[in-house]
Amino acid sequence: MVQLPGSVGVVKPQTLHFAQPLRLTSGASIADYMLMYETYGELNAARSNAVLICHALNASHHVAGLHAEDATGAGWWDNMVGPGKPVDTNRFFVVGVNNLGSCFGSTGPMSPDPATGKPYGARFPVVTVEDWVDAQARLADALGIVQWAAVMGGSLGGMQALSWTLRYPHRLRHCVAIASTPKLSAQNIAFNDVARTAIRSDPDFHGGDYYAHGVVPKRGLSVARMIGHITYLSSEDMAEKFGRLLRTQDYAFGYDVEFEVESYLRYQGDKFSEYFDANTYLLITRALDYFDPAKDFGGDLTAALARARARFLIVSFTTDWRFPPVRSREIVEALVAHDRDVTYAEIDAPHGHDAFLLDDVRYHHLVAAYFDLIHAEQNQTQVAAPPVAPQVQQGAPAESPRRAEAA
Amino acid sequence: MVQLPGSVGVVKPQTLHFAQPLRLTSGASIADYMLMYETYGELNAARSNAVLICHALNASHHVAGLHAEDATGAGWWDNMVGPGKPVDTNRFFVVGVNNLGSCFGSTGPMSPDPATGKPYGARFPVVTVEDWVDAQARLADALGIVQWAAVMGGSLGGMQALSWTLRYPHRLRHCVAIASTPKLSAQNIAFNDVARTAIRSDPDFHGGDYYAHGVVPKRGLSVARMIGHITYLSSEDMAEKFGRLLRTQDYAFGYDVEFEVESYLRYQGDKFSEYFDANTYLLITRALDYFDPAKDFGGDLTAALARARARFLIVSFTTDWRFPPVRSREIVEALVAHDRDVTYAEIDAPHGHDAFLLDDVRYHHLVAAYFDLIHAEQNQTQVAAPPVAPQVQQGAPAESPRRAEAA
Repeated sequence: MVQLPGSVGVVKPQTLHFAQPLRLTSGASIADYMLMYETYGELNAARSNAVLICHALNASHHVAGLHAEDATGAGWWDNMVGPGKPVDTNRFFVVGVNNLGSCFGSTGPMSPDPATGKPYGARFPVVTVEDWVDAQARLADALGIVQWAAVMGGSLGGMQALSWTLRYPHRLRHCVAIASTPKLSAQNIAFNDVARTAIRSDPDFHGGDYYAHGVVPKRGLSVARMIGHITYLSSEDMAEKFGRLLRTQDYAFGYDVEFEVESYLRYQGDKFSEYFDANTYLLITRALDYFDPAKDFGGDLTAALARARARFLIVSFTTDWRFPPVRSREIVEALVAHDRDVTYAEIDAPHGHDAFLLDDVRYHHLVAAYFDLIHAEQNQTQVAAPPVAPQVQQGAPAESPRRAEAA
Repeated sequence: MVQLPGSVGVVKPQTLHFAQPLRLTSGASIADYMLMYETYGELNAARSNAVLICHALNASHHVAGLHAEDATGAGWWDNMVGPGKPVDTNRFFVVGVNNLGSCFGSTGPMSPDPATGKPYGARFPVVTVEDWVDAQARLADALGIVQWAAVMGGSLGGMQALSWTLRYPHRLRHCVAIASTPKLSAQNIAFNDVARTAIRSDPDFHGGDYYAHGVVPKRGLSVARMIGHITYLSSEDMAEKFGRLLRTQDYAFGYDVEFEVESYLRYQGDKFSEYFDANTYLLITRALDYFDPAKDFGGDLTAALARARARFLIVSFTTDWRFPPVRSREIVEALVAHDRDVTYAEIDAPHGHDAFLLDDVRYHHLVAAYFDLIHAEQNQTQVAAPPVAPQVQQGAPAESPRRAEAA
């Protein structure tokens, strides 16, 4: 295995088959499914150093390192996870998993429906953040991880981390939620719905069963991605990167690409439509829309978070207008009301929502410092290895009362 | 004529035919064209009380009042223009004109190309804000208006008002530019390009010649409008109006309309796709992209605005994230650098970009106060009626040095 400096090197995705049906929030079940995942680093003897990384809309289990067959395709959070990196794989056993319904190897709309032998397509059930967390808990069981040192994610990944603290309060010691929100705003839902409308109104969508027609709703997917992409960048960052720069000599008085920003967006849209499954786009944006842990508590987030036992690192970015700092602060305030340990940082970064994926030394130092504390605490408390028990939701070791803090 | 209280009542659009070719910024010409317009109030003997109202993307010449055949379709700025309203038609002669390339009666892509007898479609030339202003100047000539008391508009309409001060500096005394910008940002262009991509990639678009196929790219137009609509509203306003309200009893675990905001947006998109021409959408968004008076001055707006002679009322709205206050302030600062008379107000309104169209007592009082001053000044200076001279760009009466101010 090639060990690149600071990289986990060449990694190989693994799959696990789950034969026990998974009951979903919607009431439907998935009878039988596969999850694709990757691991980096070594699980310690106490099984106390495992970190779960949850992905957002278009990412996957491939968090860090390279695949042998694609020497350029580094994992989506390769700057965050690796030897000597903020989530240090010399210390932590890191797990990345492709969520149910995604299109990178785990069972999803493209997979054959056992009932018919044909791709699920439109018949793949709508899944929720909570369903993903349940499936991740089963993966944890299978890997012998009763309690995560941390569950971590950005954006939609942060929602999964938050959901873990509510669904399996004793199965994680730390929740790291970056550039996230306790629920989508009307504007967030609106952008999702426009993207879905673009996909569903593409004649090549065929009601979700385009696989049978040998086509893909590329036009709709491309428009969906363009819309999404605008919301991932800050206006300031777009102004800085592209401004009003032209690719043409001067105005061409037509509708083809003239401005750099058009070229960039169309390229992003076209590239995305080559590899991403349209049904997965619908499914994941709907999971985003539905996430709202306060819903069963009359909209009271503080009441909803009473169950949480983890300690928290919450990070937001000043120019993120998709999930702006005020949304992270809602989580922080609800946790503080319960006197929970929360470290909160608002990073003054120019890159909008995408900042959570980018190199920023203050951000990375903060996460590194937080994981240093998790590591130190682990060595101090000598967490015992609990027996591997599938679906365990109770009986986690007592938590250290020490407050985790980072600059 | 029915005179409703505070309304100009039932109005009748008029058309004017222009046989002299109009040379466009692109270098192309339109050989022969019609403009549709409406007027309200009476032109005084001195011809000094005329106000031109310029429309934005989806509006028209129908600024105020009602059409006999549609008793519900009040003009798009009916709350602003009428007897006793901020732009008081008891004092001012107000002109609304549908711009060239639009789809409400003036010559545009749907009109027959005299060369072929078939609709122009994709062959209709790209027009610019400057071209519209030139066409409006010819309309002014035809109406005997050598100098406007004011040229006024919101958003793209404000760009036209600003362009008037540069293209025909002596043909207007006041420029009223509301919720506008001296040029689009990269993000603004990006949203336009996604909207255009949605339209152009609709199979019913047929390269712009859908008229011949008896279809309309409704899916693309609807998506374009949904995107646009999100940018017209503030996130706060959307949260207030829709929040996460459901139209369904509870989550339905599907992709049809569930959230109120989805219902609203889809309705807006569908309605728009019933009446708006797709080629016009492309054309007007491109005119928005291209507007940049500083372009010929190396990006120096101050240098670009040196030509302006008018006095200005500039208004922005705090929650407008499409053309936020900082964009209006760029205009103000460039004018102040030339010691021009500028009244600037930033209105703390919750409604985002759309605020310029909505009732807001502070906003309307401000505009009313400004027009009171225009009216008073007019009576004081006894503006002489200059001879009607087509294409006159010089020779306007000396302007009063009195500074126009409003709360």
